[in-house]
Amino acid sequence: MDRIYVTYAFVGQDPKAIADVIRVEQTIEFPFDLAPAWIQEQVVGKLEEITSSDLTSHLITISYNPDVTGGELTQLLNVLWGNASLFPGVKIVDLKLPKEFLDKFGGPRFGIAGLRELFKARTRPLLTTALKPMGSDPMVLAEMAHTLALAGFDLIKDDHSLANQPWATWKERVRTVSRAVQEANAITGGNSAYAPSLNLPFDQVHDAAHTAKEIGVGALLVLPGITGFDSLRVLAADDSLALPIQGHPAMLGSLVTSKEEGIAHGVVFGTLMRLAGADISIFPNMGGRFSFTQEQCLDIAQRSREVLGDLKSNWIAPAGGMTLERIPEMVQMYGPDTALLIGGALSRGNLAENAAHMSEMVHAY
Amino acid sequence: MDRIYVTYAFVGQDPKAIADVIRVEQTIEFPFDLAPAWIQEQVVGKLEEITSSDLTSHLITISYNPDVTGGELTQLLNVLWGNASLFPGVKIVDLKLPKEFLDKFGGPRFGIAGLRELFKARTRPLLTTALKPMGSDPMVLAEMAHTLALAGFDLIKDDHSLANQPWATWKERVRTVSRAVQEANAITGGNSAYAPSLNLPFDQVHDAAHTAKEIGVGALLVLPGITGFDSLRVLAADDSLALPIQGHPAMLGSLVTSKEEGIAHGVVFGTLMRLAGADISIFPNMGGRFSFTQEQCLDIAQRSREVLGDLKSNWIAPAGGMTLERIPEMVQMYGPDTALLIGGALSRGNLAENAAHMSEMVHAY
Repeated sequence: MDRIYVTYAFVGQDPKAIADVIRVEQTIEFPFDLAPAWIQEQVVGKLEEITSSDLTSHLITISYNPDVTGGELTQLLNVLWGNASLFPGVKIVDLKLPKEFLDKFGGPRFGIAGLRELFKARTRPLLTTALKPMGSDPMVLAEMAHTLALAGFDLIKDDHSLANQPWATWKERVRTVSRAVQEANAITGGNSAYAPSLNLPFDQVHDAAHTAKEIGVGALLVLPGITGFDSLRVLAADDSLALPIQGHPAMLGSLVTSKEEGIAHGVVFGTLMRLAGADISIFPNMGGRFSFTQEQCLDIAQRSREVLGDLKSNWIAPAGGMTLERIPEMVQMYGPDTALLIGGALSRGNLAENAAHMSEMVHAY
Repeated sequence: MDRIYVTYAFVGQDPKAIADVIRVEQTIEFPFDLAPAWIQEQVVGKLEEITSSDLTSHLITISYNPDVTGGELTQLLNVLWGNASLFPGVKIVDLKLPKEFLDKFGGPRFGIAGLRELFKARTRPLLTTALKPMGSDPMVLAEMAHTLALAGFDLIKDDHSLANQPWATWKERVRTVSRAVQEANAITGGNSAYAPSLNLPFDQVHDAAHTAKEIGVGALLVLPGITGFDSLRVLAADDSLALPIQGHPAMLGSLVTSKEEGIAHGVVFGTLMRLAGADISIFPNMGGRFSFTQEQCLDIAQRSREVLGDLKSNWIAPAGGMTLERIPEMVQMYGPDTALLIGGALSRGNLAENAAHMSEMVHAY
């Protein structure tokens, strides 16, 4: 396989017609008959297969010459979904990328094995949480982080809503929380990592990551639905950062929520997050505050772990209203290569006790 | 009005319950009862109004303290649609931003009046087009651009699919096409502007814009659905660039295509494009290759032109399979503050003749 294979589910009549529209739209966006023969042949996508389950439900597979992407993630996204995002009834349900293309990407820097080593977590799930609520001042968040680090949490991230608000401006928060986690690590001899959010203005993201690294944070949180999948890729590929990265689903819901349009959950939160370099892909678990199904969640897990060129597999973090009671079920469902992410629920009652309880449960695996 | 007002259409039962979920989810994402009283009061969104047209169709208006955005576009998007994007049945249908917030944004640098002056287009629509098809080498694209500039086109953009492909690498293309347009301008005494695409890797976008400026291009093309709305804002706000910017809808379809989820067409292609600083917002016109309705298209036009703090109004470019025959209807529908964008159809037959014909038609207004 040396081409990019995209399978689209199409709801409607005449799948051959829409297939011809898509393969042209996503490449030359120009009247096919006016294009030179070699462009028709080499640049326009090729229809590989149509299978129809009934008169209005079809699967269309189109293959693309990898050269149409220029080897860049931004243009891959454009080929996959740029103008096709504007078609009703069209959804990407499968994506296969050739090794030659994948070899241009570093993917997750740590991946499953790397974070197991970093956090001395040989067989257990990862213990992760978030600092909340927005409005808290840096000292309050730092005290919370200190408590969580003492309890042995591997990753303590900013809530994704923490940006640069007056109650806890970015730099002061990152400094104060990072110091608190370092102090706790000095006590425990552990390696808890604080992950500040990089949902920041376009021209500040990369510099802020370096500032955070200098301050001494242990990880980063990126929101690719807002700052772009390629911001994640650049941060993951930066050898002078070399920090684990959590990818958050903010705004990516619009790619997956519609039944008949968008991109399959597994492709977005599995393949694309991994290609862009997330060591941990956060998504809303089934049965939480959101609407993902078991099948969609397991598809994310599978795509995070299947062979994808030489890219490392990445952790999944099924989240969104999770509680301590659900840990056994989650480990059962997803296996131990799962970053358990419990946020607000840890604050109900005594944070230190809840954190210790969760830590004990997870260390038992 | 000193708060941000967001109106959500909700399809389902119990709008009060979902309203309470949204106003908490989009701010503190933390159990409401555990938050300190002042955070409940000042940080969490406030339910302003629910109106129900039937048992399962509701409009919910929630207001937010502008401080939750930190005055940044990235966090505004997160507050508007971050986790809410993951809720089925929830759609943003209206957005009102307070002056205090809007004053932090420059918006379109040129806007309607600025481009009228720049292109000496006192009353007529703008004449715009795209260089295609992908696969063409820089000389072919340059010859096309030369022909179009001679015909008096105001803006000649890269097709949005042109990135950094082997057939026409970015820098060589920008140099060659820019030179051709400058040569044509020297002949006509006109001011045709070539707009190269900045759908490039995250760490190259800003530098590439400066490189393009040094090479002598007259405008820029940005794809905020891929590189992020804030990449557009940064480029628009950069005084050392000071170039007109066209915003393209690639991948933004997923925000608008679903009937029951996403964000209204007018908010995305009107308010957000304008807030981010697009001088021209490109979107698929009704009756073309895509699916926007007349009402949706007119909503975009209205939001591009209505009062929005002190931000300049911006041009709209209804596009996507437009032809010369449709020009009178489009001017009738949208008025003269419209950038007419015809791409592939100009190449059917003789490009120079078609371009001259379109130029004549438009100059008659």
